[in-house]
Amino acid sequence: MGNISTNPPSGMRDFSGKELAARRYIEKIIREVYELYGFIEIETPAIENLSTLLGKYGEEGDQLIFRILHRREKLSRALEGKPSEADLADIGLRYDLTVPLARFVANNKDLPKFFRRYQIQSVWRADRPGKGRFREFCQCDIDITGTESLTAEAEVCGAVSGVLKRVGLEDFYFHVNHRQLLKRMIAYSGISDSLEETALVALDKLDKIGTDGVVKELRERNISDESTKKLIELTSSVAEDNHAELERLRKIFAADEIALKCISELADILAFTSTSESGKRLKIDCSLARGLGYYTGPIFEIRVHDLKGSLGGGGRYDNLIGMFKGSRIPAVGFSIGFERLILLAEERKLLPDLMPGADILLCRFPDVEISKALEVADHFRNNGIKAEVYPDATKLGKQLSYATEIKASYAGIIGADELKDNKITIKRLSDGEQLTLPLCDAPGKVKAGK
Amino acid sequence: MGNISTNPPSGMRDFSGKELAARRYIEKIIREVYELYGFIEIETPAIENLSTLLGKYGEEGDQLIFRILHRREKLSRALEGKPSEADLADIGLRYDLTVPLARFVANNKDLPKFFRRYQIQSVWRADRPGKGRFREFCQCDIDITGTESLTAEAEVCGAVSGVLKRVGLEDFYFHVNHRQLLKRMIAYSGISDSLEETALVALDKLDKIGTDGVVKELRERNISDESTKKLIELTSSVAEDNHAELERLRKIFAADEIALKCISELADILAFTSTSESGKRLKIDCSLARGLGYYTGPIFEIRVHDLKGSLGGGGRYDNLIGMFKGSRIPAVGFSIGFERLILLAEERKLLPDLMPGADILLCRFPDVEISKALEVADHFRNNGIKAEVYPDATKLGKQLSYATEIKASYAGIIGADELKDNKITIKRLSDGEQLTLPLCDAPGKVKAGK
Repeated sequence: MGNISTNPPSGMRDFSGKELAARRYIEKIIREVYELYGFIEIETPAIENLSTLLGKYGEEGDQLIFRILHRREKLSRALEGKPSEADLADIGLRYDLTVPLARFVANNKDLPKFFRRYQIQSVWRADRPGKGRFREFCQCDIDITGTESLTAEAEVCGAVSGVLKRVGLEDFYFHVNHRQLLKRMIAYSGISDSLEETALVALDKLDKIGTDGVVKELRERNISDESTKKLIELTSSVAEDNHAELERLRKIFAADEIALKCISELADILAFTSTSESGKRLKIDCSLARGLGYYTGPIFEIRVHDLKGSLGGGGRYDNLIGMFKGSRIPAVGFSIGFERLILLAEERKLLPDLMPGADILLCRFPDVEISKALEVADHFRNNGIKAEVYPDATKLGKQLSYATEIKASYAGIIGADELKDNKITIKRLSDGEQLTLPLCDAPGKVKAGK
Repeated sequence: MGNISTNPPSGMRDFSGKELAARRYIEKIIREVYELYGFIEIETPAIENLSTLLGKYGEEGDQLIFRILHRREKLSRALEGKPSEADLADIGLRYDLTVPLARFVANNKDLPKFFRRYQIQSVWRADRPGKGRFREFCQCDIDITGTESLTAEAEVCGAVSGVLKRVGLEDFYFHVNHRQLLKRMIAYSGISDSLEETALVALDKLDKIGTDGVVKELRERNISDESTKKLIELTSSVAEDNHAELERLRKIFAADEIALKCISELADILAFTSTSESGKRLKIDCSLARGLGYYTGPIFEIRVHDLKGSLGGGGRYDNLIGMFKGSRIPAVGFSIGFERLILLAEERKLLPDLMPGADILLCRFPDVEISKALEVADHFRNNGIKAEVYPDATKLGKQLSYATEIKASYAGIIGADELKDNKITIKRLSDGEQLTLPLCDAPGKVKAGK
């Protein structure tokens, strides 16, 4: 008894009260804005087949997937031999919302050609828990599948920008790069194809460990000092603005058709968003790498000056759905970092004062039957007032102080005499104002006085 | 490529479109009604320590918990020996929302004494999947902790009744029994204490397998024919109404103080709810058993005539929180069977016509730049209209038929000439009505014509 730990498991959290109300508030904004952009919600199961999950996120990602142990006969059979990890599980918890979307799109033949979906669900990663890093956390994704048009990039940036503006942020930027262009830069620096992926992984850590850290990482990953120097120079731009930066890149890659196509795509995204809120906030940043393996085109990350790391990110992944479907379906997606957005909104006091719980606590004198108190409560509820009933007809003072404890706006005091005349006494707890009024007028009074 | 199954794992589901919109609609009702009753939302993690989960649900429940495989060093160490299931996992997926609540209450010292919480989250059970039986499904729980007053029973029944009424159901009943009374019946039938739990489990199957099935089950569980006969007689009432039924029970248990106390509690619940909507719907039913092990007092189940099994259930569990906290905290809870409620609402056509997706699809002639189309889209969105932009300036007919495909109410046709005059053509897709009007009037027109 009482020896079991009552904390949530490591890296997991309980939510309640104001904290959960804040999460709901932000979630509602995200939902509303995504829907204004024509995105339709989907939900996928928490558990996916490991064959769906593995091999999509890179080696590091695969290792962070929570696997679910076989049961009964399947487990017994596995334990008869000398089992490895792979023998003990064939399902696991979803690691992100993009791979489940890809499976979903491949599985549903009747989706609109340009499927705009949003999804707000938890994902699980067996990461080392730390400040702001959890093992269960919420992702808020939008994706547009079925088109190579960069309109899709413009639209996902627009929707994300719309969310952040409505939350009350003004100073955010979309850092933009192109995965193919980055690969050309790696090649241009003299790094061999076989080291391309490891170089990308190192570069992705720039905002966490800084340039010196990346240089060190690159060396550790067997990339020559000369290539490292070249790559760092190439990706550290000093151009004044986006157009100057694109010019710089065009000169460097004047003879590289693939790179020029990437640069022209970046220019198009700037043009397409030129009349939109998000357009003012795009920053070509060719040091941006994005960790995940599946990106193939433009990539994005949202930054604010006082937050290390990003508020979210995304990009184009034209080959992922094809891994499930056989035929290629291009796609662009963006994920808002829900946990970080909540933190930021809290720090910047962008959250309204959200107090969940009853508007009125109904108290009663001992001469009032419980059934009568419950009837009065129903009267308030039927008129849209959140009402709670004190369970016992204990001393009135105790009941009233409980009303204060749960931060109700009003206490309703039910006495047998008043009730005979269909009246009730209500007391506003902020200033003690108390009045006796007809029951039919009480809900309106409480609504007005909250 | 394409060889991976794209279905969700067995017993799991994807949700989208109208189906998900229906779930959101019902969820919103549940949320609103629960909040009117003063319940406050909490969320707990999907993953709990196995020490939290095991030993609460009975043996059958324990076997249905999904366990999460150890990782890295922990797994390697376990695999060195001859591991059992217990050596391979120490966390698992939550099986219900009641045990997590008990842990939460034990873990939070500052909760109100009478903590009213609601929780709407998924739970996972490794049950054999079947029609209407899933391995991931949603539960919608309310609980009141901290009081032995039967006001709590009245309030949870009231809240659940409020939800079902608002969904549009009229013909539901709360079957009510008392776990302690049932135990007295089992004893009265001559069944020994050691067989009490197994008798309860058999009795719990009544609505699934009928009286004959239960008789067979009881025999298989080593209960004598005589005891079986007595128990079946005792629990099969022919009383006309609740008061007659309570009278019948009072006579049988005239000398059994514990049973009489239970009967008097049932009478109190009837009295407390006598003025409420739920009161008309209570049916004393002493065959009701409820499967879960943790109940200690009154138990409930919601039934409708055309649904086998229940729409939800609950009861009092005064000892569960103490298993985590050390000291006893009484509690009452109720869980709505979300999946069954959705099904029933669908069958009875209680769901409004819910069509997620864009109100207007914006199409454009090739002489209009994408950035202009996106600007027009933003204009609609800023005025509360859900707008989607066709990604390419392909043939207008193709764009318009896509608007029909995604079931938009309107297509907006953007031409360079109209745009110069700040005008747009909108076409209502239901009847083909088309008009050209100033951009500033268009959102209002779409809103009115949806």
